[in-house]
Amino acid sequence: MSPARPPTDSDTGPVRRPGGRSAEVRRRVLDAVRTHLVEYGYEALGIDAVAERSGVHRTTVYRRWRDVGGLLADVLAEATDDDWRPPDTGSLEGDLHALNSEVYAALTAEPPVTTALIAASFRSAPAADALRSFWADRYDRCAVIVHRAVRRGEVPPETDSRRLLVAATAPLYHELVLLRSAPGARIAAEAARSALLAARAGAFAERGHLPVAAAGSA
Amino acid sequence: MSPARPPTDSDTGPVRRPGGRSAEVRRRVLDAVRTHLVEYGYEALGIDAVAERSGVHRTTVYRRWRDVGGLLADVLAEATDDDWRPPDTGSLEGDLHALNSEVYAALTAEPPVTTALIAASFRSAPAADALRSFWADRYDRCAVIVHRAVRRGEVPPETDSRRLLVAATAPLYHELVLLRSAPGARIAAEAARSALLAARAGAFAERGHLPVAAAGSA
Repeated sequence: MSPARPPTDSDTGPVRRPGGRSAEVRRRVLDAVRTHLVEYGYEALGIDAVAERSGVHRTTVYRRWRDVGGLLADVLAEATDDDWRPPDTGSLEGDLHALNSEVYAALTAEPPVTTALIAASFRSAPAADALRSFWADRYDRCAVIVHRAVRRGEVPPETDSRRLLVAATAPLYHELVLLRSAPGARIAAEAARSALLAARAGAFAERGHLPVAAAGSA
Repeated sequence: MSPARPPTDSDTGPVRRPGGRSAEVRRRVLDAVRTHLVEYGYEALGIDAVAERSGVHRTTVYRRWRDVGGLLADVLAEATDDDWRPPDTGSLEGDLHALNSEVYAALTAEPPVTTALIAASFRSAPAADALRSFWADRYDRCAVIVHRAVRRGEVPPETDSRRLLVAATAPLYHELVLLRSAPGARIAAEAARSALLAARAGAFAERGHLPVAAAGSA
Protein backbone atom coordinates (compact mmCIF):
# COMPACT_ATOMS: atom_id res chain seq x y z
CA MET A 1 0.00 0.00 0.00
CA SER A 2 3.03 2.23 0.01
CA PRO A 3 3.67 4.41 -3.06
CA ALA A 4 5.08 2.53 -6.00
CA ARG A 5 7.30 5.52 -6.86
CA PRO A 6 8.67 8.31 -4.68
CA PRO A 7 6.49 11.42 -4.65
CA THR A 8 7.30 14.20 -7.11
CA ASP A 9 8.07 17.72 -6.02
CA SER A 10 4.73 18.97 -7.21
CA ASP A 11 2.76 17.05 -4.62
CA THR A 12 5.36 16.65 -1.91
CA GLY A 13 5.51 20.33 -1.04
CA PRO A 14 8.51 22.38 -0.02
CA VAL A 15 9.55 20.44 3.09
CA ARG A 16 10.54 16.80 2.46
CA ARG A 17 10.02 14.66 5.54
CA PRO A 18 9.26 11.25 3.99
CA GLY A 19 7.92 9.48 7.10
CA GLY A 20 5.98 12.35 8.64
CA ARG A 21 4.76 13.68 5.33
CA SER A 22 3.60 10.26 4.19
CA ALA A 23 1.79 9.61 7.46
CA GLU A 24 0.18 13.05 7.31
CA VAL A 25 -1.01 12.51 3.73
CA ARG A 26 -2.44 9.14 4.69
CA ARG A 27 -4.24 10.59 7.68
CA ARG A 28 -5.81 13.39 5.62
CA VAL A 29 -6.82 11.09 2.80
CA LEU A 30 -8.33 8.39 5.04
CA ASP A 31 -10.19 11.01 7.08
CA ALA A 32 -11.64 12.32 3.83
CA VAL A 33 -12.66 8.80 2.77
CA ARG A 34 -14.51 8.16 6.04
CA THR A 35 -16.26 11.52 6.06
CA HIS A 36 -17.23 11.38 2.40
CA LEU A 37 -18.42 7.77 2.67
CA VAL A 38 -20.69 8.61 5.59
CA GLU A 39 -22.03 11.81 4.04
CA TYR A 40 -22.59 10.71 0.45
CA GLY A 41 -22.25 6.92 0.36
CA TYR A 42 -20.14 4.60 -1.72
CA GLU A 43 -21.57 5.87 -5.01
CA ALA A 44 -20.07 9.33 -4.51
CA LEU A 45 -16.67 8.05 -3.44
CA GLY A 46 -13.96 8.65 -6.03
CA ILE A 47 -10.34 9.65 -6.32
CA ASP A 48 -11.28 13.19 -7.34
CA ALA A 49 -13.72 13.72 -4.48
CA VAL A 50 -11.24 12.37 -1.93
CA ALA A 51 -8.41 14.45 -3.37
CA GLU A 52 -10.48 17.63 -3.25
CA ARG A 53 -11.75 16.98 0.26
CA SER A 54 -8.34 16.06 1.68
CA GLY A 55 -6.41 18.77 -0.13
CA VAL A 56 -3.99 16.12 -1.38
CA HIS A 57 -3.10 16.18 -5.07
CA ARG A 58 -5.17 13.69 -7.07
CA THR A 59 -2.02 12.27 -8.67
CA THR A 60 -0.75 11.34 -5.20
CA VAL A 61 -4.05 9.76 -4.22
CA TYR A 62 -4.25 7.85 -7.47
CA ARG A 63 -0.65 6.63 -7.32
CA ARG A 64 -0.83 5.49 -3.71
CA TRP A 65 -4.35 4.06 -3.49
CA ARG A 66 -5.17 3.36 -7.15
CA ASP A 67 -8.97 3.30 -6.76
CA VAL A 68 -11.87 3.37 -4.33
CA GLY A 69 -11.25 -0.23 -3.34
CA GLY A 70 -7.70 0.64 -2.40
CA LEU A 71 -8.89 3.60 -0.32
CA LEU A 72 -11.43 1.52 1.60
CA ALA A 73 -8.95 -1.30 2.09
CA ASP A 74 -6.48 1.15 3.64
CA VAL A 75 -9.10 2.59 5.99
CA LEU A 76 -9.56 -0.92 7.35
CA ALA A 77 -5.84 -1.74 7.25
CA GLU A 78 -5.23 1.34 9.40
CA ALA A 79 -7.80 0.08 11.91
CA THR A 80 -6.13 -3.34 11.94
CA ASP A 81 -2.74 -1.76 12.60
CA ASP A 82 -3.86 -0.10 15.79
CA ASP A 83 -3.00 -1.29 19.27
CA TRP A 84 -6.54 -2.22 20.25
CA ARG A 85 -6.72 -4.89 22.92
CA PRO A 86 -9.87 -6.65 24.15
CA PRO A 87 -11.35 -5.68 27.53
CA ASP A 88 -10.04 -7.41 30.65
CA THR A 89 -12.62 -7.04 33.43
CA GLY A 90 -11.83 -10.14 35.46
CA SER A 91 -14.76 -12.30 34.33
CA LEU A 92 -15.91 -13.82 31.07
CA GLU A 93 -19.33 -12.21 31.28
CA GLY A 94 -17.74 -8.84 32.02
CA ASP A 95 -15.31 -9.17 29.10
CA LEU A 96 -18.03 -10.24 26.66
CA HIS A 97 -20.34 -7.46 27.81
CA ALA A 98 -17.60 -4.85 27.49
CA LEU A 99 -16.69 -6.19 24.04
CA ASN A 100 -20.34 -6.13 22.97
CA SER A 101 -20.69 -2.59 24.27
CA GLU A 102 -17.88 -1.58 21.90
CA VAL A 103 -19.56 -3.40 19.02
CA TYR A 104 -22.90 -1.79 19.85
CA ALA A 105 -21.31 1.66 20.01
CA ALA A 106 -19.60 1.14 16.65
CA LEU A 107 -22.78 -0.08 14.95
CA THR A 108 -24.91 2.77 16.28
CA ALA A 109 -22.29 5.52 16.02
CA GLU A 110 -22.86 8.87 14.38
CA PRO A 111 -21.39 9.29 11.89
CA PRO A 112 -21.97 5.61 10.98
CA VAL A 113 -18.50 4.82 9.64
CA THR A 114 -18.66 1.10 10.45
CA THR A 115 -22.02 0.50 8.79
CA ALA A 116 -20.89 2.54 5.78
CA LEU A 117 -17.80 0.32 5.48
CA ILE A 118 -19.96 -2.80 5.77
CA ALA A 119 -22.25 -1.46 3.06
CA ALA A 120 -19.23 -0.67 0.86
CA SER A 121 -17.96 -4.24 1.31
CA PHE A 122 -20.91 -5.40 -0.79
CA ARG A 123 -19.73 -3.17 -3.65
CA SER A 124 -15.98 -3.54 -3.61
CA ALA A 125 -14.01 -6.78 -3.49
CA PRO A 126 -10.91 -5.09 -1.99
CA ALA A 127 -13.10 -3.54 0.72
CA ALA A 128 -14.67 -6.95 1.39
CA ASP A 129 -11.23 -8.54 1.66
CA ALA A 130 -10.02 -5.81 3.98
CA LEU A 131 -13.12 -6.10 6.17
CA ARG A 132 -12.64 -9.85 6.39
CA SER A 133 -9.00 -9.35 7.45
CA PHE A 134 -10.01 -6.70 9.95
CA TRP A 135 -12.56 -8.98 11.63
CA ALA A 136 -10.26 -12.01 11.53
CA ASP A 137 -7.65 -9.92 13.33
CA ARG A 138 -10.19 -8.70 15.90
CA TYR A 139 -11.50 -12.21 16.68
CA ASP A 140 -7.91 -13.46 16.93
CA ARG A 141 -7.03 -10.73 19.41
CA CYS A 142 -10.17 -11.56 21.44
CA ALA A 143 -9.25 -15.23 21.83
CA VAL A 144 -7.39 -14.24 25.01
CA ILE A 145 -10.77 -13.49 26.61
CA VAL A 146 -11.66 -17.17 26.30
CA HIS A 147 -8.20 -18.38 27.29
CA ARG A 148 -8.40 -16.37 30.50
CA ALA A 149 -11.87 -17.77 31.23
CA VAL A 150 -10.55 -21.30 30.74
CA ARG A 151 -7.69 -20.59 33.14
CA ARG A 152 -10.17 -19.24 35.71
CA GLY A 153 -12.21 -22.42 35.29
CA GLU A 154 -15.28 -20.53 34.04
CA VAL A 155 -15.70 -22.67 30.91
CA PRO A 156 -14.51 -26.12 29.81
CA PRO A 157 -10.86 -26.35 28.66
CA GLU A 158 -11.79 -27.39 25.12
CA THR A 159 -13.95 -24.30 24.54
CA ASP A 160 -13.54 -23.02 20.97
CA SER A 161 -12.82 -19.31 21.33
CA ARG A 162 -13.97 -18.33 17.85
CA ARG A 163 -17.34 -20.05 18.18
CA LEU A 164 -17.92 -18.53 21.61
CA LEU A 165 -16.95 -15.04 20.46
CA VAL A 166 -19.11 -15.28 17.34
CA ALA A 167 -22.08 -16.49 19.41
CA ALA A 168 -21.63 -13.52 21.74
CA THR A 169 -21.31 -10.85 19.06
CA ALA A 170 -23.39 -12.18 16.15
CA PRO A 171 -26.82 -11.17 17.55
CA LEU A 172 -25.69 -7.53 17.62
CA TYR A 173 -24.55 -7.56 13.99
CA HIS A 174 -27.64 -9.48 12.94
CA GLU A 175 -30.15 -7.18 14.66
CA LEU A 176 -28.40 -3.90 13.86
CA VAL A 177 -26.93 -4.48 10.40
CA LEU A 178 -29.13 -7.04 8.65
CA LEU A 179 -32.49 -7.06 10.49
CA ARG A 180 -32.18 -3.30 11.00
CA SER A 181 -34.11 -3.47 14.24
CA ALA A 182 -33.59 -1.21 17.25
CA PRO A 183 -32.82 -3.71 20.01
CA GLY A 184 -31.51 -1.12 22.48
CA ALA A 185 -28.19 -1.14 24.30
CA ARG A 186 -29.28 -4.03 26.55
CA ILE A 187 -28.65 -6.45 23.70
CA ALA A 188 -24.94 -6.08 24.52
CA ALA A 189 -25.47 -7.58 27.98
CA GLU A 190 -28.11 -10.09 26.87
CA ALA A 191 -26.00 -11.58 24.07
CA ALA A 192 -22.96 -11.73 26.37
CA ARG A 193 -25.06 -13.52 28.99
CA SER A 194 -26.54 -16.10 26.63
CA ALA A 195 -23.11 -16.90 25.15
CA LEU A 196 -21.76 -17.31 28.68
CA LEU A 197 -24.55 -19.72 29.65
CA ALA A 198 -24.08 -21.74 26.48
CA ALA A 199 -20.31 -21.83 27.06
CA ARG A 200 -20.73 -22.97 30.67
CA ALA A 201 -22.99 -25.76 29.44
CA GLY A 202 -20.18 -26.85 27.12
CA ALA A 203 -21.76 -25.71 23.84
CA PHE A 204 -18.45 -24.62 22.35
CA ALA A 205 -16.43 -27.54 23.68
CA GLU A 206 -18.42 -30.20 21.88
CA ARG A 207 -15.92 -31.10 19.20
CA GLY A 208 -17.26 -33.92 17.14
CA HIS A 209 -20.81 -33.38 18.38
CA LEU A 210 -22.90 -35.04 15.74
CA PRO A 211 -26.26 -33.57 14.90
CA VAL A 212 -27.91 -36.98 14.89
CA ALA A 213 -30.35 -36.01 17.63
CA ALA A 214 -31.30 -33.00 15.54
CA ALA A 215 -32.11 -34.90 12.38
CA GLY A 216 -35.77 -34.88 13.26
CA SER A 217 -38.32 -37.35 14.50
CA ALA A 218 -41.53 -35.90 13.03
CA MET B 1 -48.14 -3.46 -5.69
CA SER B 2 -50.95 -4.21 -8.10
CA PRO B 3 -51.15 -2.09 -11.26
CA ALA B 4 -52.47 1.39 -10.69
CA ARG B 5 -54.34 1.24 -14.00
CA PRO B 6 -55.60 -1.69 -16.03
CA PRO B 7 -53.16 -2.84 -18.69
CA THR B 8 -53.50 -1.46 -22.18
CA ASP B 9 -54.09 -3.65 -25.22
CA SER B 10 -50.53 -3.18 -26.42
CA ASP B 11 -49.03 -5.08 -23.50
CA THR B 12 -51.95 -7.28 -22.53
CA GLY B 13 -51.87 -9.38 -25.67
CA PRO B 14 -54.78 -10.93 -27.49
CA VAL B 15 -56.25 -13.00 -24.63
CA ARG B 16 -57.45 -10.96 -21.62
CA ARG B 17 -57.37 -12.99 -18.39
CA PRO B 18 -56.78 -10.29 -15.75
CA GLY B 19 -55.88 -12.56 -12.82
CA GLY B 20 -53.86 -15.16 -14.68
CA ARG B 21 -52.24 -12.63 -16.95
CA SER B 22 -51.25 -10.38 -14.08
CA ALA B 23 -49.80 -13.28 -12.10
CA GLU B 24 -47.93 -14.50 -15.18
CA VAL B 25 -46.48 -11.05 -15.83
CA ARG B 26 -45.38 -10.80 -12.21
CA ARG B 27 -43.78 -14.23 -12.30
CA ARG B 28 -41.82 -13.44 -15.47
CA VAL B 29 -40.70 -10.03 -14.23
CA LEU B 30 -39.62 -11.21 -10.79
CA ASP B 31 -37.78 -14.18 -12.29
CA ALA B 32 -35.93 -11.73 -14.51
CA VAL B 33 -35.07 -9.52 -11.52
CA ARG B 34 -33.62 -12.45 -9.57
CA THR B 35 -31.63 -13.81 -12.49
CA HIS B 36 -30.31 -10.41 -13.56
CA LEU B 37 -29.42 -9.44 -10.00
CA VAL B 38 -27.40 -12.59 -9.50
CA GLU B 39 -25.68 -12.40 -12.88
CA TYR B 40 -24.86 -8.70 -13.07
CA GLY B 41 -25.47 -7.22 -9.61
CA TYR B 42 -27.53 -4.29 -8.43
CA GLU B 43 -25.68 -1.80 -10.63
CA ALA B 44 -26.98 -3.40 -13.82
CA LEU B 45 -30.55 -3.74 -12.61
CA GLY B 46 -32.92 -1.39 -14.38
CA ILE B 47 -36.44 -1.25 -15.78
CA ASP B 48 -35.13 -1.64 -19.34
CA ALA B 49 -32.95 -4.67 -18.56
CA VAL B 50 -35.75 -6.38 -16.66
CA ALA B 51 -38.27 -5.62 -19.39
CA GLU B 52 -36.00 -7.02 -22.08
CA ARG B 53 -35.13 -10.12 -20.10
CA SER B 54 -38.71 -10.89 -19.07
CA GLY B 55 -40.25 -10.09 -22.45
CA VAL B 56 -42.74 -7.82 -20.68
CA HIS B 57 -43.26 -4.34 -22.16
CA ARG B 58 -41.20 -1.71 -20.36
CA THR B 59 -44.29 0.48 -19.93
CA THR B 60 -45.93 -2.31 -17.96
CA VAL B 61 -42.87 -2.87 -15.81
CA TYR B 62 -42.52 0.85 -15.18
CA ARG B 63 -46.20 1.36 -14.36
CA ARG B 64 -46.44 -1.56 -11.97
CA TRP B 65 -43.06 -1.48 -10.21
CA ARG B 66 -41.94 2.13 -10.82
CA ASP B 67 -38.22 1.55 -10.22
CA VAL B 68 -35.56 -0.91 -9.09
CA GLY B 69 -36.54 -0.46 -5.47
CA GLY B 70 -40.10 -1.44 -6.30
CA LEU B 71 -38.91 -4.53 -8.17
CA LEU B 72 -36.71 -5.70 -5.30
CA ALA B 73 -39.43 -4.98 -2.76
CA ASP B 74 -41.84 -7.15 -4.75
CA VAL B 75 -39.37 -10.03 -4.98
CA LEU B 76 -39.31 -10.04 -1.17
CA ALA B 77 -43.04 -9.41 -0.84
CA GLU B 78 -43.64 -12.48 -3.00
CA ALA B 79 -41.45 -14.52 -0.67
CA THR B 80 -43.35 -13.17 2.35
CA ASP B 81 -46.68 -14.11 0.76
CA ASP B 82 -45.79 -17.76 0.47
CA ASP B 83 -47.09 -20.49 2.71
CA TRP B 84 -43.74 -21.30 4.30
CA ARG B 85 -44.04 -22.83 7.75
CA PRO B 86 -41.18 -23.55 10.16
CA PRO B 87 -40.00 -27.14 10.61
CA ASP B 88 -41.74 -29.33 13.19
CA THR B 89 -39.44 -32.22 14.10
CA GLY B 90 -40.69 -32.93 17.61
CA SER B 91 -37.80 -31.30 19.53
CA LEU B 92 -36.44 -27.79 19.91
CA GLU B 93 -32.95 -28.83 18.85
CA GLY B 94 -34.37 -30.62 15.81
CA ASP B 95 -36.48 -27.61 14.83
CA LEU B 96 -33.60 -25.15 15.22
CA HIS B 97 -31.23 -27.41 13.32
CA ALA B 98 -33.74 -27.85 10.49
CA LEU B 99 -34.36 -24.09 10.40
CA ASN B 100 -30.63 -23.37 10.35
CA SER B 101 -30.18 -25.90 7.57
CA GLU B 102 -32.63 -23.88 5.49
CA VAL B 103 -30.80 -20.65 6.34
CA TYR B 104 -27.45 -22.26 5.48
CA ALA B 105 -28.81 -23.55 2.18
CA ALA B 106 -30.18 -20.10 1.29
CA LEU B 107 -26.93 -18.32 2.15
CA THR B 108 -24.75 -20.74 0.19
CA ALA B 109 -27.14 -21.32 -2.73
CA GLU B 110 -26.12 -21.04 -6.35
CA PRO B 111 -27.30 -18.76 -7.78
CA PRO B 112 -26.88 -16.62 -4.65
CA VAL B 113 -30.25 -14.87 -4.75
CA THR B 114 -30.46 -14.27 -1.00
CA THR B 115 -27.01 -12.75 -0.68
CA ALA B 116 -27.66 -10.61 -3.76
CA LEU B 117 -30.86 -9.31 -2.13
CA ILE B 118 -28.97 -8.59 1.10
CA ALA B 119 -26.32 -6.72 -0.88
CA ALA B 120 -29.05 -4.75 -2.70
CA SER B 121 -30.61 -3.78 0.63
CA PHE B 122 -27.54 -1.62 1.27
CA ARG B 123 -28.26 0.31 -1.94
CA SER B 124 -32.01 0.66 -1.97
CA ALA B 125 -34.23 1.88 0.87
CA PRO B 126 -37.33 0.08 -0.48
CA ALA B 127 -35.32 -3.14 -0.73
CA ALA B 128 -34.06 -2.64 2.85
CA ASP B 129 -37.63 -2.08 4.06
CA ALA B 130 -38.85 -5.15 2.21
CA LEU B 131 -36.05 -7.28 3.59
CA ARG B 132 -36.80 -6.09 7.10
CA SER B 133 -40.48 -7.01 6.63
CA PHE B 134 -39.54 -10.36 5.17
CA TRP B 135 -37.35 -11.27 8.15
CA ALA B 136 -39.85 -9.91 10.69
CA ASP B 137 -42.46 -12.15 9.12
CA ARG B 138 -40.13 -15.17 9.17
CA TYR B 139 -39.18 -14.71 12.83
CA ASP B 140 -42.87 -14.23 13.71
CA ARG B 141 -43.77 -17.47 11.96
CA CYS B 142 -40.95 -19.27 13.78
CA ALA B 143 -42.18 -18.23 17.23
CA VAL B 144 -44.27 -21.41 17.24
CA ILE B 145 -41.04 -23.42 17.48
CA VAL B 146 -40.39 -21.86 20.87
CA HIS B 147 -44.02 -22.08 21.99
CA ARG B 148 -44.03 -25.81 21.29
CA ALA B 149 -40.75 -26.23 23.21
CA VAL B 150 -42.26 -24.40 26.18
CA ARG B 151 -45.32 -26.71 26.07
CA ARG B 152 -43.02 -29.72 25.99
CA GLY B 153 -41.17 -28.35 29.01
CA GLU B 154 -37.87 -28.08 27.13
CA VAL B 155 -37.27 -24.44 28.05
CA PRO B 156 -38.60 -22.07 30.73
CA PRO B 157 -42.11 -20.65 30.15
CA GLU B 158 -40.91 -17.04 29.94
CA THR B 159 -38.47 -17.79 27.11
CA ASP B 160 -38.39 -14.90 24.61
CA SER B 161 -38.86 -16.53 21.22
CA ARG B 162 -37.30 -13.73 19.19
CA ARG B 163 -34.11 -13.66 21.26
CA LEU B 164 -33.79 -17.44 21.13
CA LEU B 165 -34.37 -17.56 17.36
CA VAL B 166 -31.91 -14.74 16.71
CA ALA B 167 -29.28 -16.44 18.88
CA ALA B 168 -29.76 -19.66 16.92
CA THR B 169 -29.60 -18.11 13.44
CA ALA B 170 -27.32 -15.07 13.87
CA PRO B 171 -24.01 -16.98 13.79
CA LEU B 172 -24.87 -18.29 10.30
CA TYR B 173 -25.63 -14.83 8.92
CA HIS B 174 -22.58 -13.38 10.65
CA GLU B 175 -20.11 -16.00 9.39
CA LEU B 176 -21.52 -16.32 5.89
CA VAL B 177 -22.66 -12.78 5.05
CA LEU B 178 -20.47 -10.39 7.03
CA LEU B 179 -17.34 -12.33 8.05
CA ARG B 180 -17.42 -14.14 4.69
CA SER B 181 -15.87 -17.24 6.20
CA ALA B 182 -16.54 -20.81 5.13
CA PRO B 183 -17.77 -22.41 8.35
CA GLY B 184 -19.14 -25.56 6.70
CA ALA B 185 -22.62 -27.01 7.04
CA ARG B 186 -21.99 -28.14 10.60
CA ILE B 187 -22.48 -24.56 11.77
CA ALA B 188 -26.23 -25.18 11.34
CA ALA B 189 -26.17 -27.88 14.02
CA GLU B 190 -23.62 -26.13 16.22
CA ALA B 191 -25.52 -22.84 16.40
CA ALA B 192 -28.79 -24.70 17.04
CA ARG B 193 -27.11 -26.62 19.84
CA SER B 194 -25.58 -23.59 21.57
CA ALA B 195 -28.89 -21.69 21.42
CA LEU B 196 -30.64 -24.72 22.91
CA LEU B 197 -28.14 -24.96 25.79
CA ALA B 198 -28.44 -21.23 26.50
CA ALA B 199 -32.24 -21.48 26.39
CA ARG B 200 -32.28 -24.45 28.77
CA ALA B 201 -30.10 -22.45 31.16
CA GLY B 202 -32.73 -19.70 31.06
CA ALA B 203 -30.73 -17.18 29.00
CA PHE B 204 -33.78 -15.95 27.09
CA ALA B 205 -36.16 -15.99 30.07
CA GLU B 206 -34.17 -13.47 32.10
CA ARG B 207 -36.44 -10.47 31.66
CA GLY B 208 -35.12 -7.62 33.70
CA HIS B 209 -31.70 -9.25 33.99
CA LEU B 210 -29.49 -6.32 34.82
CA PRO B 211 -25.94 -6.35 33.52
CA VAL B 212 -24.60 -5.32 36.91
CA ALA B 213 -22.58 -8.49 37.23
CA ALA B 214 -21.10 -7.75 33.84
CA ALA B 215 -19.98 -4.22 34.64
CA GLY B 216 -16.52 -5.49 35.35
CA SER B 217 -14.45 -6.01 38.46
CA ALA B 218 -10.99 -5.35 37.09
